[in-house]
Amino acid sequence: MNDAIQLKDPVASLDRSDASAVRSFVESAHPVDLATFIDDLQPDAALQQLLAIPLPRRVSVFGYLRPDVQVTIARLLDRTQLAEIVTTMGADDRADLFNQLSPDEQQTLLRSLAQAERNDIRRLSAHSESTAGAIMTSDYATLAPTLNSHDAIEALRREAPDKETIYRAYVIDEKRRLIGTIRLQDLILAPAEAKVLDLMERDPLAVAANEDQEDVARKIARYDVLALPVVDVDGRLVGIVTHDDAHDALQEETTEDFHRIGTVGKLTQGVRESGLRVLYQKRVMWLGLLIFGNLFSGAGIAFYEGIIVSHVSLVFFLPLLIGSSGNAGSQSATLMVRALATGEVILKDWGYLIVRELVIALALGVTLGLAVAPVGLARGGPTIALIVALTMTLVVLAGSLIGMSLPFLLSRLKLDPATASAPLVTTIADAVGVVLYFAIATALLT
Amino acid sequence: MNDAIQLKDPVASLDRSDASAVRSFVESAHPVDLATFIDDLQPDAALQQLLAIPLPRRVSVFGYLRPDVQVTIARLLDRTQLAEIVTTMGADDRADLFNQLSPDEQQTLLRSLAQAERNDIRRLSAHSESTAGAIMTSDYATLAPTLNSHDAIEALRREAPDKETIYRAYVIDEKRRLIGTIRLQDLILAPAEAKVLDLMERDPLAVAANEDQEDVARKIARYDVLALPVVDVDGRLVGIVTHDDAHDALQEETTEDFHRIGTVGKLTQGVRESGLRVLYQKRVMWLGLLIFGNLFSGAGIAFYEGIIVSHVSLVFFLPLLIGSSGNAGSQSATLMVRALATGEVILKDWGYLIVRELVIALALGVTLGLAVAPVGLARGGPTIALIVALTMTLVVLAGSLIGMSLPFLLSRLKLDPATASAPLVTTIADAVGVVLYFAIATALLT
Repeated sequence: MNDAIQLKDPVASLDRSDASAVRSFVESAHPVDLATFIDDLQPDAALQQLLAIPLPRRVSVFGYLRPDVQVTIARLLDRTQLAEIVTTMGADDRADLFNQLSPDEQQTLLRSLAQAERNDIRRLSAHSESTAGAIMTSDYATLAPTLNSHDAIEALRREAPDKETIYRAYVIDEKRRLIGTIRLQDLILAPAEAKVLDLMERDPLAVAANEDQEDVARKIARYDVLALPVVDVDGRLVGIVTHDDAHDALQEETTEDFHRIGTVGKLTQGVRESGLRVLYQKRVMWLGLLIFGNLFSGAGIAFYEGIIVSHVSLVFFLPLLIGSSGNAGSQSATLMVRALATGEVILKDWGYLIVRELVIALALGVTLGLAVAPVGLARGGPTIALIVALTMTLVVLAGSLIGMSLPFLLSRLKLDPATASAPLVTTIADAVGVVLYFAIATALLT
Repeated sequence: MNDAIQLKDPVASLDRSDASAVRSFVESAHPVDLATFIDDLQPDAALQQLLAIPLPRRVSVFGYLRPDVQVTIARLLDRTQLAEIVTTMGADDRADLFNQLSPDEQQTLLRSLAQAERNDIRRLSAHSESTAGAIMTSDYATLAPTLNSHDAIEALRREAPDKETIYRAYVIDEKRRLIGTIRLQDLILAPAEAKVLDLMERDPLAVAANEDQEDVARKIARYDVLALPVVDVDGRLVGIVTHDDAHDALQEETTEDFHRIGTVGKLTQGVRESGLRVLYQKRVMWLGLLIFGNLFSGAGIAFYEGIIVSHVSLVFFLPLLIGSSGNAGSQSATLMVRALATGEVILKDWGYLIVRELVIALALGVTLGLAVAPVGLARGGPTIALIVALTMTLVVLAGSLIGMSLPFLLSRLKLDPATASAPLVTTIADAVGVVLYFAIATALLT
């Protein structure tokens, strides 16, 4: 294998006790890897490492540091050092850092920046969280429609070192309204005198600044584009969302969905970085709420105490029946939550899907009912077998329908469908299962 | 709002009964939207629509069709029509289509293609599923290191119409070994006589053809690159994985993780397209297996039948206690499964995390124990309150530790950690909870 080609994780494989290995790593590593390395250092050591890196590279490494490390280091840097970095870093990263500082620190930082950067930060940091505006950047290249291809390439050449991407330039009219986009590739291929207006793609895809970041990310993936322009209500270009920021936003939202379906609240940091108190708080609420749900199951049992005392063998099947109901419900809920999140299924599909679910759940219920009937026969005779098989069929059906419908119901109520977590569905299905079981048993045994 | 800017979903908002609206949509829609429109048509109508589209655009629309629709249409097209499309479509999409055809159809297709496309298909379709090789494309531009910048731009200009992206060209030596990469941007900015060898970035990031697609996708996101080159064991360039294909692969894997955590087997199609029989099959296995798990809980209950008969009020608290144990376990499992999937947590973090989990779970257990103690007091007096509170603390602790450890154990056994689904953790936690509860009750009541 060619030595020049990096296939291992260069940070994990670095021997930190080997000073010369560390030195050569710091000199030659990819800025992303170097940032990961610095992320794990103590604040003072991190600061020292960062300042040892020559300037254009230092900015790039700083931009890749974990947000909380950026803030810590920003507080340790003096005003000039911080201004040096902040002036040259990506406009979107700069706005993110700014938003994490205290109001006092924000004022100090703004005072040490030039007017252009100051305005840019103010503009970018004004948008609400989780919208296109919050993840967009102002690092894009614009062209006037009247330029010819030669002059346009020259203009991009001048802008290039500053801009995150010049692969696609945005064509705006004199009122900054977005009228088209043009690929660098097409400019290069065109004759020198061809006009941007004639070369550009018209009817550009664009998103509104207040559009949800998840929708924007999905559009970027759907249309296979590197970036989508963001426009205000008057169609004026205010920024672009690049594919990498959209990807990060989508990953974040997916993690939130995962956690929500496991009834864990929203974490602002990863599970390793989060404090013990935060993790406790994010988990205790749902555990507490679900207790109330479980009390319904308990109440159901208390109501049927008579039949339990006279037929104590019924309790043997209780975990089996309510467990299967909850499991079938979790399955349906999971399928629906993910399908709603990826946009594969939309609200109005509910009617079609519930009919399908009815058929599938009935088949599942009958299968499981037949599977447990022999156990019922062995432990309690034919009547118990009938009760257990019948209950199993019905609770699997009930659990599945609850699990399938809850995400739609939540979505309808403008809540996140992932709130229809497995534990919530299980708890509801449990209570329904208890009542069904003992009601059937009472009917057939007394 | 500027009319030219599309902010709504153009397919969903299309009135299909309005013939002139449909005609203008077909003429002017983005190929992605047009493909979505054709996806929903009957095969014959889909074929007719597709053939009505002029040729370069037809290929682009075909490439965006759903894989199963592509296959259906490929079977309806005559040899010449199919060859026209297949020859010009993206190399990766072409190989994917090829892999879905029957051996006979593959032979027929190969015979109607030119030698270059034939070899390309064979090369790309030889890689195992879910690897870099399976999602890479051969549509990339290469440059010799000896070219000067002017000649390099000319070379890219000639290659451009064929290649998926020329934003970054790959520099290879005479043995096709990857020695560097260069951005179009840097070529344009360089003086005409500068050599590619001096302009290129050395030590390029690259991945091996057999590397897992999820890892490749994560690297593309981590290093913010548009594509990663794929090399064979000798360091020779064999393809590139582009960010959009990596993104799709990651989305697919995430959906699989979601489904797995809800004990639904791997679906090759979306939940709306999947047949009823497939959905039944993907769900019944785990439901059946979990029944065995639940039988352990039942056996635990049968073992303690004596204490249940003498203190039937204990059954009231059963759903509460085993439910909370399962819920706490689901939470821990969810946190770990996602953290392992995103690479935030790795196997060797287990020791550190289990200590943290011990503290958090104990705090959660004590909180819930104190919360249910009054209910125990009200329903059964101080001894029952003590039993319930003590059991609650212990089962939440046990459930959390099981939920946290299972994903690591599965990962250790080279299984997907997401197999530690909420229902599996719940079932195990249930059985542990039953035994703990009645053991404590027996100890304190007899």
